[in-house]
Amino acid sequence: MTDAGAEPAAVGEMITATPENDGVDAAVSAARRVIAALLHAGGNSAAEMNGVAERLDAIAEHLEDHAPDRDERLVDMWAGGGVTRHDPVTGPENAIAPPLHVYGLPDGSVAGKVTLGLPYQGPPGCVHGGVSALILDHVLGAANAWGDGPTGVTGTLTLRYRRRTPLFEELTVAARQESFSGRKIRTVGTISAGGEVCVEADGLFIDVDLSGSR
Amino acid sequence: MTDAGAEPAAVGEMITATPENDGVDAAVSAARRVIAALLHAGGNSAAEMNGVAERLDAIAEHLEDHAPDRDERLVDMWAGGGVTRHDPVTGPENAIAPPLHVYGLPDGSVAGKVTLGLPYQGPPGCVHGGVSALILDHVLGAANAWGDGPTGVTGTLTLRYRRRTPLFEELTVAARQESFSGRKIRTVGTISAGGEVCVEADGLFIDVDLSGSR
Repeated sequence: MTDAGAEPAAVGEMITATPENDGVDAAVSAARRVIAALLHAGGNSAAEMNGVAERLDAIAEHLEDHAPDRDERLVDMWAGGGVTRHDPVTGPENAIAPPLHVYGLPDGSVAGKVTLGLPYQGPPGCVHGGVSALILDHVLGAANAWGDGPTGVTGTLTLRYRRRTPLFEELTVAARQESFSGRKIRTVGTISAGGEVCVEADGLFIDVDLSGSR
Repeated sequence: MTDAGAEPAAVGEMITATPENDGVDAAVSAARRVIAALLHAGGNSAAEMNGVAERLDAIAEHLEDHAPDRDERLVDMWAGGGVTRHDPVTGPENAIAPPLHVYGLPDGSVAGKVTLGLPYQGPPGCVHGGVSALILDHVLGAANAWGDGPTGVTGTLTLRYRRRTPLFEELTVAARQESFSGRKIRTVGTISAGGEVCVEADGLFIDVDLSGSR
């Protein structure tokens, strides 16, 4: 399996939510900057960090005071349909997401580029193997949604770690639905750096559409 | 594979970093609260969220101004040896980490409890399958470190999704080194809710210790 190497933005259609430079997306983007800065800061004094904690707690309190009831919020966040704005891989409203932007390509595959920093570290200077798994699981799902074939829920996901995945370098994430037969869907993907595959994913998804529409 | 159900804190030794209610850990804990609150907030006005963005950017700027050079920081953060304080699963200094606290048990296995909120959502009200993969990858590694057998790097990780993993409910994460032969180490784990296994992980690790110490 090789890294196709094409520039996804140039040839595809963005199929993840488009972040805005305004409102909640701007606040989430600033929160990501805080998360990384806390890991970079290192030797600040405890007193100084306690001051940072107070300022962050005040912001959280303000947001919590204005937040709707949890169940109401859950209904509301899923009311729009289509691509999500809050998942932990691509969501512009989720500060945990790097975020990765995924593009649907004319050949039915999907791809995106992402550079990961300290919050995603496993071994020294490398991406955490579990973070690669998180990203690939999500992108395999995006490939199922983009292609002509059925979608489905993950049954089995197998990850093969070929080489270490570097932090601070642009990674290419790519996936495509390989085949489907009956209710079984097979979808594969890779994370590559500098044209070399670092992690391969092989997913077996189960089509749970019982509507008879296919 | 069943959920042993024991309360890990009561019978084991905590093998992940102990969070302090002070300094950087307190700031990171407050940052986690901000991440969740941003997802819960929903309908705040763009103007209000832009105000939040400004306050968060000011905090990030302050931290960045005092941060050491990246390479220096990387050396420093790995100088301590032992358990990490900054990984994305258990790290008290990483706001992306839930965090999960892992306990080493007398039988050689490891376990921990964790409740996940909106930042970790995949399907409505459920944990993202990739987040389960992230957690299990990390905890299988912890099981290798805790047991008497060799440790190693992940070669292949297979996840089997048995049922949806709920948000907002206490989950039990458990893992143990199953066997080793030559350089191959097999380690397995589960995430369970209410005594039912939701996700199973089966990992093949490769012992890269060439020091001849075993």
